[in-house]
Amino acid sequence: MTHALIPGSFDPITNGHLDIIERAAGIYDTVLVSVVKNYSKAPLFTTEERMEMLADACSAWSNIRIGSFEGLLVEYATQQDIHVIVKGLRAVSDFEYEFQMAQLNRHLNRNVETVFMMTGTEYAYLSSSIVKEIARLGGMVKGLVPENVEARLRQKLERT
Amino acid sequence: MTHALIPGSFDPITNGHLDIIERAAGIYDTVLVSVVKNYSKAPLFTTEERMEMLADACSAWSNIRIGSFEGLLVEYATQQDIHVIVKGLRAVSDFEYEFQMAQLNRHLNRNVETVFMMTGTEYAYLSSSIVKEIARLGGMVKGLVPENVEARLRQKLERT
Amino acid sequence: MTHALIPGSFDPITNGHLDIIERAAGIYDTVLVSVVKNYSKAPLFTTEERMEMLADACSAWSNIRIGSFEGLLVEYATQQDIHVIVKGLRAVSDFEYEFQMAQLNRHLNRNVETVFMMTGTEYAYLSSSIVKEIARLGGMVKGLVPENVEARLRQKLERT
Amino acid sequence: MTHALIPGSFDPITNGHLDIIERAAGIYDTVLVSVVKNYSKAPLFTTEERMEMLADACSAWSNIRIGSFEGLLVEYATQQDIHVIVKGLRAVSDFEYEFQMAQLNRHLNRNVETVFMMTGTEYAYLSSSIVKEIARLGGMVKGLVPENVEARLRQKLERT
Amino acid sequence: MTHALIPGSFDPITNGHLDIIERAAGIYDTVLVSVVKNYSKAPLFTTEERMEMLADACSAWSNIRIGSFEGLLVEYATQQDIHVIVKGLRAVSDFEYEFQMAQLNRHLNRNVETVFMMTGTEYAYLSSSIVKEIARLGGMVKGLVPENVEARLRQKLERT
Amino acid sequence: MTHALIPGSFDPITNGHLDIIERAAGIYDTVLVSVVKNYSKAPLFTTEERMEMLADACSAWSNIRIGSFEGLLVEYATQQDIHVIVKGLRAVSDFEYEFQMAQLNRHLNRNVETVFMMTGTEYAYLSSSIVKEIARLGGMVKGLVPENVEARLRQKLERT
Repeated sequence: MTHALIPGSFDPITNGHLDIIERAAGIYDTVLVSVVKNYSKAPLFTTEERMEMLADACSAWSNIRIGSFEGLLVEYATQQDIHVIVKGLRAVSDFEYEFQMAQLNRHLNRNVETVFMMTGTEYAYLSSSIVKEIARLGGMVKGLVPENVEARLRQKLERT
Repeated sequence: MTHALIPGSFDPITNGHLDIIERAAGIYDTVLVSVVKNYSKAPLFTTEERMEMLADACSAWSNIRIGSFEGLLVEYATQQDIHVIVKGLRAVSDFEYEFQMAQLNRHLNRNVETVFMMTGTEYAYLSSSIVKEIARLGGMVKGLVPENVEARLRQKLERT
Repeated sequence: MTHALIPGSFDPITNGHLDIIERAAGIYDTVLVSVVKNYSKAPLFTTEERMEMLADACSAWSNIRIGSFEGLLVEYATQQDIHVIVKGLRAVSDFEYEFQMAQLNRHLNRNVETVFMMTGTEYAYLSSSIVKEIARLGGMVKGLVPENVEARLRQKLERT
Repeated sequence: MTHALIPGSFDPITNGHLDIIERAAGIYDTVLVSVVKNYSKAPLFTTEERMEMLADACSAWSNIRIGSFEGLLVEYATQQDIHVIVKGLRAVSDFEYEFQMAQLNRHLNRNVETVFMMTGTEYAYLSSSIVKEIARLGGMVKGLVPENVEARLRQKLERT
Repeated sequence: MTHALIPGSFDPITNGHLDIIERAAGIYDTVLVSVVKNYSKAPLFTTEERMEMLADACSAWSNIRIGSFEGLLVEYATQQDIHVIVKGLRAVSDFEYEFQMAQLNRHLNRNVETVFMMTGTEYAYLSSSIVKEIARLGGMVKGLVPENVEARLRQKLERT
Repeated sequence: MTHALIPGSFDPITNGHLDIIERAAGIYDTVLVSVVKNYSKAPLFTTEERMEMLADACSAWSNIRIGSFEGLLVEYATQQDIHVIVKGLRAVSDFEYEFQMAQLNRHLNRNVETVFMMTGTEYAYLSSSIVKEIARLGGMVKGLVPENVEARLRQKLERT
């Protein structure tokens, strides 16, 4: 049995994230998608909102669970008894950063492996930041995020 | 249960390959390491020799099998009923090529996923070509390849 | 007739920007150089100052117009009835970001194309940020920006 | 009026090439697609066959012409009175090579500009070499090349 | 006699920095390691603390001096009568930035050369930011920084 | 005293090579420029011709010597009692390859350091291969290579 952990900010989840999550759910026995509580960046959505959007988007998969954590990723993985971290890669700049993180995490804990999946080419340009930027400028995010996220983005940005 | 396929030329296997193979064996239920019979490049070792060196190097792992194939990778994976291909990534140039191959393979067969693992930094400079080049120039390959490969490289290069 | 739009912060215009603008003016019928009103970054110069410096630097070209805009780039291009966006590329990190933006803009509007021109090697290291940094540290920006920008940079930095 | 030249080996044309050619035809007044007679690489198709496949694939566009040339690209462009060369970019490795070529061509002739368009993400993994490799291994190239190229690839590879 | 200058924030020094400093001390006659007083980023350690940690870590080398500076790097180097700046390179993203800085510095002063050394692969993932992040999250930084820096990091983060 | 070794094919020397060689001669006490006798690639010029062109181009510098070698670079450096290898870097693809080579050479011999200098931006597109390609296609190589190399290239290509 191989259990996988997909950590991320998911502020909010995009169709690019969903692509990686669903493909990971297809090859690993269980997948835990977990929101990083990162206090240094001010997120648009609360941790709870981000978890709800993830749960909504992944509800069709019985082997996907949603969680959240703070602290060191490898310690969280070990507490959850998970030895495989899955990250999506889009581009060379992702690659460099993720390469550093994967090597660092191996230094911190040899029992946790990071594996990478290439984001589908149709999502190569997508990120949560770009989605928020488009929404702020009044553009259409249809096709870029799951449907329920569209509505929540509109609500959230109207209020701010 | 997740079964993984690690394809490669392995002409010959290096400690960088072995690092990826062993780490994959640690997270997947079974691993099939399979030599690509590539007729366009003239290999130094025969397919059989390459399989023997792999079998030798991986003998301590009961969940690793050795094979060989020709033709399209995704068709071979499907015949073997394996849905996960594992590739090692060392550098940006690897990344670009492997990204293209992974996207192409998804185009050819959506049921086969490619996942990537970062080669340990201590092997970041290693490749079969570099090992052969050093051996040809009379340099030491100790520490770069499994022990039995050292002897075989010496034998092979004496003959040629 | 091909009309081109060159968007940017131009805070301030550098000789690298001018290189791209002039070369674009040489191959397109008209060129609209347009200052992005980006409220998230605090610019050194006001939108009006940036437009004045652009107008000054481009005054020798009758087919160049200066403008400004806020909101989505592809919507602005469409309002201006322009179907070609021109961006300068300097380096790999530029490339990755611009690649994402170009793909995103195609997703948002298939009728607007982004084309790229390579910044002349003599300007490969130049950016508005680097120019401002040098000026702040008391260095010479002669040869890095048009002459009138040199004077304005000195004035602006004396005041702040 | 802006005339554009798209040079390439086109051995054979892929849907990625066609994407760039059609988008260029949408923004430039005329487009000359021209086969490079490169004697150092042994092509699969003759220059004439490559031109026929291009002509077939581009027949719906009245502003596209097909040609061929040998010698220096910038001299050919100048002879044809064309000042804009269009190249497609897919990846970082493309970028590096094309950057060098564009700078070299500017050194050789300041009156010829190279502009780049990003290949659609759906074709990011495509190249003539990959298409030929798949066809040789018995895989399906449907969706990767124009329909008439599929038939010609089959014929050509049966004979060899 | 060749004198070298190694500028940096060193907030704090890591084993990756130390690797470059010691290797530079092995090939240049003298090495001046100098802390940049960068007012735009809020450092964790004061300039004096950073210089003390550097002095401690480098005390075994008689040809290494510690300094600090503000203003333009090339002017500082010229004042110190040093014509060689040494920078460590870890990854492609480092490379791009450092390439721009080296070209800019050559533009500002042709008598100062920048040379690069590749950080040892075992430190490829290390940076001051990553070290501070790990320490903040309660992780072990043993092996990532010199011993005296470990203690100072703990003290500093307890207070904040 | 710091002695530097600059290895290369120099088939033939370009102005980009000369830029690196002269700048290295400005910062190191002596520089040995040495032609690699690489039997796997068929060079255009013989080792002797390449050494003559180097000697000609570097005759103004009294601290530059010309040599040639075969076998492992680090062994040659050690025989010559040189501990610093200087390589020029132009682009990201150079960087990746040179990074691998530098790490490999450190593995083979810890007493030999590789340092890198960035090729001047005006030579960023230059390589021996590009020079030969232009000369073969009848283009002008003036400004790309030292003057005496121009004449030799013409002679050599007329004969072949």
